Amino acid sequence: MLDAIADIGRDPGTGGYRRYAWGDADMLLREWFTGEAAARGMDLVEDGNGNQLAWWGSGPDALLLGSHLDSVPDGGAYDGPLGIVSSFAAVDRLRAEGFQPSRPVVVASFADEEGARFGIACAGSQLATGALAPARALAQKDRDGITLAAAMAARGRDPRAVGRTAWLADVGAFVELHVEQGRSLVHSGAAVGVASAIWPHGRWRLDFCGEANHAGATRMEDRRDPMPAYAATVLAARRLATESGARATFGRLEVEPGGTNAIPSRVSAWLDARAGDEESLDRLVAELVAAARTATAADGTTLHLVTESVSPAVRFDVPLRDRIASTLDAPVLATGAGHDAGVLSARVPTAMLFVRNPTGVSHSPAEHAADDDCTAGVTALTAVVRDLA
Amino acid sequence: MLDAIADIGRDPGTGGYRRYAWGDADMLLREWFTGEAAARGMDLVEDGNGNQLAWWGSGPDALLLGSHLDSVPDGGAYDGPLGIVSSFAAVDRLRAEGFQPSRPVVVASFADEEGARFGIACAGSQLATGALAPARALAQKDRDGITLAAAMAARGRDPRAVGRTAWLADVGAFVELHVEQGRSLVHSGAAVGVASAIWPHGRWRLDFCGEANHAGATRMEDRRDPMPAYAATVLAARRLATESGARATFGRLEVEPGGTNAIPSRVSAWLDARAGDEESLDRLVAELVAAARTATAADGTTLHLVTESVSPAVRFDVPLRDRIASTLDAPVLATGAGHDAGVLSARVPTAMLFVRNPTGVSHSPAEHAADDDCTAGVTALTAVVRDLA
Repeated sequence: MLDAIADIGRDPGTGGYRRYAWGDADMLLREWFTGEAAARGMDLVEDGNGNQLAWWGSGPDALLLGSHLDSVPDGGAYDGPLGIVSSFAAVDRLRAEGFQPSRPVVVASFADEEGARFGIACAGSQLATGALAPARALAQKDRDGITLAAAMAARGRDPRAVGRTAWLADVGAFVELHVEQGRSLVHSGAAVGVASAIWPHGRWRLDFCGEANHAGATRMEDRRDPMPAYAATVLAARRLATESGARATFGRLEVEPGGTNAIPSRVSAWLDARAGDEESLDRLVAELVAAARTATAADGTTLHLVTESVSPAVRFDVPLRDRIASTLDAPVLATGAGHDAGVLSARVPTAMLFVRNPTGVSHSPAEHAADDDCTAGVTALTAVVRDLA
Repeated sequence: MLDAIADIGRDPGTGGYRRYAWGDADMLLREWFTGEAAARGMDLVEDGNGNQLAWWGSGPDALLLGSHLDSVPDGGAYDGPLGIVSSFAAVDRLRAEGFQPSRPVVVASFADEEGARFGIACAGSQLATGALAPARALAQKDRDGITLAAAMAARGRDPRAVGRTAWLADVGAFVELHVEQGRSLVHSGAAVGVASAIWPHGRWRLDFCGEANHAGATRMEDRRDPMPAYAATVLAARRLATESGARATFGRLEVEPGGTNAIPSRVSAWLDARAGDEESLDRLVAELVAAARTATAADGTTLHLVTESVSPAVRFDVPLRDRIASTLDAPVLATGAGHDAGVLSARVPTAMLFVRNPTGVSHSPAEHAADDDCTAGVTALTAVVRDLA
């Protein structure tokens, strides 16, 4: 199944995927999902947020499987899609062995998990559970100034339908399978593991503001260049995160006006920060922002801070986790990566399965999982559904 | 006349100008120039590089005036256009007083002086004088991957006509009037000054290359993130330039893949560096690149250096400079900014007039010159033409 979507949204230059919410690649993937549901005679439901659900059976207390199809810029082939194809494959295996589930089994594809276009991760699941206000999500703009509302309307979706969804009341548990984004399973020698927790994490935008001027004619002493304060903040972020065992990344930047021979008027930098607990994350961000303020004050520039999103730590349902770990005899591990499972876990008992990643590389075209390990993931997910449904 | 073009290529949000070679704004400005020439009965010549010349009279040993109409991103209203409108105004004044020039007087508008779109400053004048190879210029790409050749062809210009031009043989001297990009004239209390020299300067692209990975799941110790080495280089550049009285600026950046939750695979940074003499510039760039290499080596990342352009120091024709300074009783000053006059000076006796800039700010919407000082500039240029022609 991964082969069927291998070309959708793939950049020919980098080999990475660029599958952004409500873009052309996303629409092709939605059609692919619709086709997979139809081929299995599963009833397709799309909620007002663009989340797609394929139902095997109907009624309450459903066992939800699935993940997401969108990607970060130049993402890999497994982050998201592996969970969806593994879920369909588990349904196929169970049907082939004549298994009759005692509760509905649903394969879900959550909209805009990565937040690559509109800046809010897990937007589809957050809207469905009420964790994210519709008005805030709909007003988010992409790099071209297009709002989520306009992007949805352009695809025939009614922005007024965005928000809490009815299907959630019929879900009794959620199990998301995902490629591991790290090397814990390599170290433990297992093809599949079970998640214990997701670290708290957040995104902040730091606008370093100065004054544009001529790069050749303006003396260094006369500048109000915001770039050095940004640079000092990058180095402070690395030092603080390394010292505390946390993570801090600047992966997205905008420089205005952006000319080679113009001193910038503004450097906007997006910080992604995560830590093992909320207190550590708060301290990391506070110390990093203090370093940025010190640097801007010394340069006659200013810092404007915008908190785009903060997600608390997620501790997955312990009975469900223990039951799955026991069924699979699989190791238990925590992760620094956010997932729709983290969002759903606030509303229903939720678990995650991870499939081994030999290099640990993710959010990159080099992301990989061995075919045998992917098959082991399907086998594990099938066993979990057999046990729970 | 500045009012007539005040709206062309102006960004409504910033108030700055975005007039890039062969873009829509550039085409409107070309039409404006054509109209100004026609209104004065001056013969318009456009050479194969897109440089426009309006001739009052014909024949050899012409006195060339003028400047450029294009801008940096979010540039000011004066950088370039002030020289052209002042030249037309000088022609008007001389004609009103019945002056009969003894040699042709030509108003020139040079193509793509800022190099904002294709990365090579003074492209039009460099091509006309043979300082820049046509094949190299034509292959330059803008941010959308469009080559100069394609951009010219899309506007009906034949890329095969790019290169050395015939009109240069008929030019005996060039005087470019320009708004000052600094505050030397404020300090000397004069509305108009005469240039002595242009600092040597250049543009380099530094590609910091690492490995994309997940911002949440990848430990700081396991990263090959190119951003910290870029940051260390920014701080080294400021320290080195400040210590040596030179200038170093990073005003343009590209980050791949550019996602908030992805460690960058590549940071491409454009360095603009200038110094009082070639040796100082060479040393500045060498020390800065050494700092970048040290930082990348420590991080397991790599540096790829591309020299995009290097312009040697320009010392303007001394007899012409002294004659003009004497005619005007004006101060003489050097500048760190490059100009078409610097290019032409390699071929014909060349001089520059600067008009006072109260804040020194340029390459910014805040660039300004007082109306009285602009009028003083026209008066000075008129006097220079009266003396030389």
